[in-house]
Amino acid sequence: MDRATQEHIDSRLDDTLKDLLTLTAQPSVSAQEWGLYECAAMVADELTKAGLKAEIMSTGDSRYPSVYAEAKGASNNTLLFYNHFDVQPAEPLDLWDSPPFEPGQRGEYLFGRGIADDKGHLTARIATIKSIMATQGELPCNVKFIVEGAEEIGSPGFHDFVAQNTDKFKADVCIWEGGGVSWDGRPMLTLGVKGLLYVELECVAAGSDSHSSYAPVVPNPAWRLVWALNTLKDASENVMLRGFYDRVRPALENEVEALKGLPDEVDRFKEYFGVEMFLGEASGYEFRRKLLMDPTCNIAGIDSGYTGEGSKTVLPAVAKMKIDFRLVPNQSPDEVAASLRAHLDEHGFSDISIKIMGSEHPARTSIDHSWVKLVGNAAQSVYGVAPYLQPNMTGTGPQYPIQELLSVPVASCGIDYPGNRMHAPNENIRRDYFRMGMLHTAEVLEQFGKQAHV
Amino acid sequence: MDRATQEHIDSRLDDTLKDLLTLTAQPSVSAQEWGLYECAAMVADELTKAGLKAEIMSTGDSRYPSVYAEAKGASNNTLLFYNHFDVQPAEPLDLWDSPPFEPGQRGEYLFGRGIADDKGHLTARIATIKSIMATQGELPCNVKFIVEGAEEIGSPGFHDFVAQNTDKFKADVCIWEGGGVSWDGRPMLTLGVKGLLYVELECVAAGSDSHSSYAPVVPNPAWRLVWALNTLKDASENVMLRGFYDRVRPALENEVEALKGLPDEVDRFKEYFGVEMFLGEASGYEFRRKLLMDPTCNIAGIDSGYTGEGSKTVLPAVAKMKIDFRLVPNQSPDEVAASLRAHLDEHGFSDISIKIMGSEHPARTSIDHSWVKLVGNAAQSVYGVAPYLQPNMTGTGPQYPIQELLSVPVASCGIDYPGNRMHAPNENIRRDYFRMGMLHTAEVLEQFGKQAHV
Repeated sequence: MDRATQEHIDSRLDDTLKDLLTLTAQPSVSAQEWGLYECAAMVADELTKAGLKAEIMSTGDSRYPSVYAEAKGASNNTLLFYNHFDVQPAEPLDLWDSPPFEPGQRGEYLFGRGIADDKGHLTARIATIKSIMATQGELPCNVKFIVEGAEEIGSPGFHDFVAQNTDKFKADVCIWEGGGVSWDGRPMLTLGVKGLLYVELECVAAGSDSHSSYAPVVPNPAWRLVWALNTLKDASENVMLRGFYDRVRPALENEVEALKGLPDEVDRFKEYFGVEMFLGEASGYEFRRKLLMDPTCNIAGIDSGYTGEGSKTVLPAVAKMKIDFRLVPNQSPDEVAASLRAHLDEHGFSDISIKIMGSEHPARTSIDHSWVKLVGNAAQSVYGVAPYLQPNMTGTGPQYPIQELLSVPVASCGIDYPGNRMHAPNENIRRDYFRMGMLHTAEVLEQFGKQAHV
Repeated sequence: MDRATQEHIDSRLDDTLKDLLTLTAQPSVSAQEWGLYECAAMVADELTKAGLKAEIMSTGDSRYPSVYAEAKGASNNTLLFYNHFDVQPAEPLDLWDSPPFEPGQRGEYLFGRGIADDKGHLTARIATIKSIMATQGELPCNVKFIVEGAEEIGSPGFHDFVAQNTDKFKADVCIWEGGGVSWDGRPMLTLGVKGLLYVELECVAAGSDSHSSYAPVVPNPAWRLVWALNTLKDASENVMLRGFYDRVRPALENEVEALKGLPDEVDRFKEYFGVEMFLGEASGYEFRRKLLMDPTCNIAGIDSGYTGEGSKTVLPAVAKMKIDFRLVPNQSPDEVAASLRAHLDEHGFSDISIKIMGSEHPARTSIDHSWVKLVGNAAQSVYGVAPYLQPNMTGTGPQYPIQELLSVPVASCGIDYPGNRMHAPNENIRRDYFRMGMLHTAEVLEQFGKQAHV
C-alpha cells in the first residue's frame, strides 16, 4: 500500500473518529422516521468534502431519502460501496451505559447507536478516500456510493430504486456495508446475505379491553396468538409452514469447506450472549452451519394487555406480534408470506391479520469469484493472514437487487468485531479494528485500480 | 322508607355527585402506588363528616393504608360495609374520551377512573348515612366501614389484617363493595366472589437482547412462553393444569334456579363488548352458567422484544406475562399455584419463573340466608321489583376472610349498571342508578335496624 496514504490515515485517525462521533450523535432511526433528512445531509456533506459528487435522492418514498455519490479515478474499473446511514431504534434505553445518541470513547472502545451498524463503516470508507486524495491526488479507480436511509426497516422501495438507476449505479464490483474480524482478530470476508420477511400479526377480538372477570365468555386475542404461534414453530425449532424447507438449496462443496475453515468461537459467543447452551446444543461446525445456513422464524416482539408494574386484571381486546423470518437461497419472501397466510387460515386463524413490514431475497456471491480473491488478497497483505470466508452473513441487506440488477459480485468487509452489540444496547466498535478496516479499504482500491478492466 | 331521608338524599344529589367527582379526581392506583395516602385521608375526612369515628390503619404493608370507621346506632345490630378506595391503572390512556383523573358529567353519565369501582359505591353509602343523620338524628343500627387501599392488586395482607382485628370488625352482616342493576334496570343481589390467582411468568433466555440474525442458535424466551402457554390452556379453553377442575363444586339446586331466573342479556353484552360471538357460542342459561360458575385462565398481559411502531430485528432476552386465574368454590389459589409450578416443570419449562402477585379464595353466601332475604326485600320496596340473585359475581374481592373470620353473611348491591366499563377506558356510572343505590342503602339500614338481634 502507498506509504504516504497509510501515514495520512494514521495521523488523521483521531479526527476521523471525531467525525464518526458527530455522525453518530445525529439520530437517524428509520423505524421511527427520526432525523433521516438531517443525517442524509451530513453524509452528503462528508462525501462532498472527500471530493465526490454527492446528491440526496428519493427512493420513491419521501420519508426515506438515500445519498448517492461518485468520483472518477485513474482506471476505468468502477467499485460501488453500499452503506446505509439509518440505524435501529435504541430501545430499551435503560440498558445503555451511556445515552445512545451521545456517543463517546471509553478506552479502546467507542459507543453509540449506529456506530458499528453502519456509520463506522461509512465513515471509515469516506476517510480512506480523503487520505488517498490527499496523498495521491486521485483515486485508483472509479468509486460510487449508495448510502441508503431505510436499510433497518427492510429497504422498502430499494429494488425499484436500483432498477430505475441501473445506468447511474453501474459498477464492476461491490463492497457491502460491513464486516470485519473474528473473535481472534482474523479478517472475515462475507459473500452474501440472508433474506428476510418481517411481518406484524394482529388479532382484534373485541371492541375494547374489558375486566378479566369476563374471561369465561369473551375471547382473548393473546390466547389466539399463542395458539396460532404454537402451530408455526415447534419446540424443536422446526418451522411448520408447508414447504418452508423445500426450496432451501443444500450447501455447495466449497461452502461446506469454507464453513469448516471458520474458527470455533462457540465459547466466546456463549459468553457474549450470556447463554449456557445454544439451541440444539449446537457446537463446532454444526453451530456455524446452523447460524449461517439455516432459515429462522423469530419472535421480535409481542404485546398485549397490561405490561406495566404490578397487576391489572384486564382482558385485552388486541394482541400484536412482530416476527422476522431469515431466509436462505433459494427461499423467497413472497412465497413465505403467502404460505403464512394459508397456514393461519388452514389452522382456523383467519382472524389474525398479517402486515408485511419488510421483504428481502437472500443472495450469495460465489466463493470462487475473482473479486473475492482480490478482496481476500488485500486482506492478507494488510492483516498478514488469509481471511476467513463466510458464504453469507447471518443478517440481511438489499444485496439481491444489487447482484441481480447490476450484475456485480459482492463482498463484505470492514471495521467490525463480533462484540459490537449491533441492534442492541451498548453498540460499539474498537479503535484498532476501525484502523485496520481503513487500511484494507485503501488496499482494495489500490489493487482493484490496477486490475485489467473486464 | 323515611320520607324526610329520601327527600334529603334527592335534594343533596348534585352535591353528592360533586363530592364523588372530587374523590375520583384523586388518583389512587395501588398497582402504581400512586396517591394512596392522599386518597385515604380524603375518605377518612368524608367518613368523619358523616359522623363516624374514622382512622387510617396499616394493613401490615405501609404502602397500602386502609380506612376504618364506625358509628353507634339505635339498635344493637351491626352492619359492616366493605369498600375500597384504590383503583385500577388507567392505561391505555389514549382510549379515554376524557382524562381518567379529570372526572366529569356528560348528560346522565359521570366518567372517571374508579367512579364506578369503587368510589361511587363508597360515596353513595357515606352520603346516605349523612342524610339519615341529618333527618333522623341517629342511625337505625351500628355501622362499620372497612375501606381497603389495595383491593385492585389482590388485597395483599388483608387476610391477616382482618384476623388481627376480629373484635374491632365484628358485625352481624356485611354489604359488599358493589353491585347494581341488570341491563333492564332490575336490581341484582350478588352473594359471593370468585377467587383469584394472579401470577407473573418470566423467562430470561440470554444476558441481553441480540440481533435477530442469531436466531438459529440463541434461545428466544418469547417462543418459550408461547410453547409453555400452549400446554396451559387448549384452544377449546380447557385449563390443562392437573386436577384444576377436580375441586370445582357442582352448582347447588338453588344456584341453578337462581341462574335460570337471571335475564338473557347476551345480545346486550355482545354489543357492549364488541364481539360477534362468545366463547363456545354460549348463549342463554349456558352463557350465564359459564360466566358465573366457570373458573378461568386469562392472559392479562404479555410483553417481549420491540413493540413500538415499525420494525426492529431483535431477538429478545426476556419475555414476561401476566395471567389471572378466576377460581370458584372449592378451588384454592395455593393449590393452583403449586400445580402451575409442577406443570411447567413437568413440561420442560423450569426456566420460567412464577411470581405470585395476588391470591384470593372464592366465597359464597347461601341464597337461603335471612340476610339475603332482607336485602332483597329492601330492593323490592325501592325498585318496585324483586331482585335477580347471582350466586357470585364474575369478579373477585377479599370476601373469604370476611366470611370466614368474621362469620358474617355477605351481599353485594349498589349503584352500578352493566355498561360501567370498570377496569377499562371510559369507566362510568349513571346518575339515576346512583340515586337508586342510595335509596336501597337507606332502606336496608332501616329494615336491618328493626330486625331482632340474633
